[in-house]
Amino acid sequence: MQDILKGLVTKNATKIILLVMDGLGSLPGPDGRTELEAGDTPNLDALARASACGLHLPVGSGITPGSGPGHLALFGYNPIEYQIGRGILEALGLGLTVKSTDVAIRCNYSTMKDGIIVDRRAGRIPTDQSRKLTEMLQKEIADIDDAEITFAPGMEHRFAVLLRFPYPLEPGAATLNDTDPQKTGLAPIPLAPETETGEKVAKVLDKLVAKASDLLKDEEKANHLLLRGISQKPDMPSFEEAYGLKALAIAAYPMYRGVSKLVGMEAHDIDGDIREELDNLKANYNDYDFFFMHIKKVDSYGEDGNFDAKAKKIAEVDSFIPEILDLKPDVLIITGDHSTPSVLKNHSWHPVPVLLHSPYVLGQLVQGFSEREFTKGELGIFPTTHLMPLALANSMRLKKFGA
Amino acid sequence: MQDILKGLVTKNATKIILLVMDGLGSLPGPDGRTELEAGDTPNLDALARASACGLHLPVGSGITPGSGPGHLALFGYNPIEYQIGRGILEALGLGLTVKSTDVAIRCNYSTMKDGIIVDRRAGRIPTDQSRKLTEMLQKEIADIDDAEITFAPGMEHRFAVLLRFPYPLEPGAATLNDTDPQKTGLAPIPLAPETETGEKVAKVLDKLVAKASDLLKDEEKANHLLLRGISQKPDMPSFEEAYGLKALAIAAYPMYRGVSKLVGMEAHDIDGDIREELDNLKANYNDYDFFFMHIKKVDSYGEDGNFDAKAKKIAEVDSFIPEILDLKPDVLIITGDHSTPSVLKNHSWHPVPVLLHSPYVLGQLVQGFSEREFTKGELGIFPTTHLMPLALANSMRLKKFGA
Repeated sequence: MQDILKGLVTKNATKIILLVMDGLGSLPGPDGRTELEAGDTPNLDALARASACGLHLPVGSGITPGSGPGHLALFGYNPIEYQIGRGILEALGLGLTVKSTDVAIRCNYSTMKDGIIVDRRAGRIPTDQSRKLTEMLQKEIADIDDAEITFAPGMEHRFAVLLRFPYPLEPGAATLNDTDPQKTGLAPIPLAPETETGEKVAKVLDKLVAKASDLLKDEEKANHLLLRGISQKPDMPSFEEAYGLKALAIAAYPMYRGVSKLVGMEAHDIDGDIREELDNLKANYNDYDFFFMHIKKVDSYGEDGNFDAKAKKIAEVDSFIPEILDLKPDVLIITGDHSTPSVLKNHSWHPVPVLLHSPYVLGQLVQGFSEREFTKGELGIFPTTHLMPLALANSMRLKKFGA
Repeated sequence: MQDILKGLVTKNATKIILLVMDGLGSLPGPDGRTELEAGDTPNLDALARASACGLHLPVGSGITPGSGPGHLALFGYNPIEYQIGRGILEALGLGLTVKSTDVAIRCNYSTMKDGIIVDRRAGRIPTDQSRKLTEMLQKEIADIDDAEITFAPGMEHRFAVLLRFPYPLEPGAATLNDTDPQKTGLAPIPLAPETETGEKVAKVLDKLVAKASDLLKDEEKANHLLLRGISQKPDMPSFEEAYGLKALAIAAYPMYRGVSKLVGMEAHDIDGDIREELDNLKANYNDYDFFFMHIKKVDSYGEDGNFDAKAKKIAEVDSFIPEILDLKPDVLIITGDHSTPSVLKNHSWHPVPVLLHSPYVLGQLVQGFSEREFTKGELGIFPTTHLMPLALANSMRLKKFGA
């Protein structure tokens, strides 16, 4: 799809807002209504009546998307073609920026005895203890060979490492096996590079593990590092290359800023929630074409199985809708990256409700903002990657295809 | 789609039932109602209200599926990628099992005079006469070269032959041209193999035709064999490889057991109709994960153009629904393999109604079990191959895609 768009994209002064409530879609709760049906959302209901509505499928029928694939699809990137490695996601989630010069790794502190892993998680050491070790490692290890090394502390035994080389790496060439043997009583699995780039990366990582083991040798539990999800940024066009849009990500959680930066959006740190995000949107409204605003808590309450809190959070989002409409965006899209039904306490495969507001829709097909109502909408059920072309079309940014 | 699923499939103790009424979908009859709208189906109507409903397209818009493609699509195999040759279908329909070591051929008894075909169907000789000849050929011809030969008697001039080699054949390599010249007054077309495997098969078939012609030389009409649809089983993953499901096919007609065995399902011969199939389902319910239950007569009455009999047969199926629900399957799918409108007396291209019952659906979007109502369902109109991913998702057998 992006191939076709590339020849059709034009620029203009329109503004597009993509408001994502993470984990928006759901299933009926105790009284047969979903959170969207039960919650008090007069502004979203009114907007839905005047909008193009439907449901979208991030990866495919029956497939439950992770947050990475869900957002890539919203941004118009085929999540099957562009898969984000676990190391990349971990690094993004811990606030690191990942470029085409980088290799990212999920690391575990682990316990080794006589060359054998006796605890893969170093007794799940407390986060504050783990953080101190990671900061010590960062102080002692700044670079190896020509790679700059960045450590990002995580929860308990987990942290991320980013290798940044002074040149872009051949896409996909640095993917390496996990050293984690998955079971205790075994030695770590040696890195087995298959390309020249892989060999270079493996050399750096072998030295890193050796140095760290030496620095940690007096630790009772966290005396070794296991490496997992060693991965590179997928080789994809930037948001600006693909769509000609200068884009700003407004997200309180690092992971979502990270995925946005991965496609070349800019992002500011946000300290707060919807209010602070909205202030950021207003403050930057003149400087960008496209705004991705991400609200995390809708998903969090779904994952907690807290039906009422999820419904309440959506109602809170609803109360900010008039302020967003006051900005008079040319296109306003309100949706989620995947469904998270409270009854499942987890992401799910169900199609995600979506509303697209612009002057160029039919409208008057749905009664309100809900999964069931949106089955009646003019957008039908469609692949999530079709949203960006619709956003561009509704902002008059796409030329005619053919004559 | 199967590629993605492969990495996501997990196993558990859930049960999935796929109930297929052959040729289920239809068009309005004399009073403007379809068979589903006219028939008395209180159980299906109630179930539809509590289920995810929609319509599926086996091959594509406007394409009328044969029984082979229709069922392959239901089983999640792309029917355009995996085409079942006519020889294979004929062999399956006559009760033969087809493996990767086999070549299957549709045969016609024909009349030859001085090397020229003067009747392509040997005067449509009566079935009992044809059966005797086929049994004689089987007695005289047990093997040729290293191929074991199996004859399966059919109707009138038709029968099937299966060559079974002692080793798997290179997929697709044994596809050969028909010898049937399609017109009388011409000689049979010689087999023109294009691969080494093809040459081996052609040698066996040439010897087979020569031997049979010799054995049949005193027959007035059936003195020669024409070969058609020479084909191999498509090279596809088994149902268990693709989905991790141990599957049982419950079908009274050999053809449908055959297609099921082609994807690696087990199947028992069923002597009877719905009652006997349901008894088989109950007797084997603990031993399998997935049950494909096939009811043929809905299609048969459609092909007869018998609106009332089709509606009555569906009502009969309806009366068994409570018994199926008593088994408490985790996922129950009720659908067809293609539409067979009585008004067309034939398979048609119309999307096929489908109901998916599980705890994880929205429901309450349709009023009853019918083509028109199902256009309002939460599943929309979708490719038939998406049904298996949905069945797996709704039985909690798929992991999340990406993190």
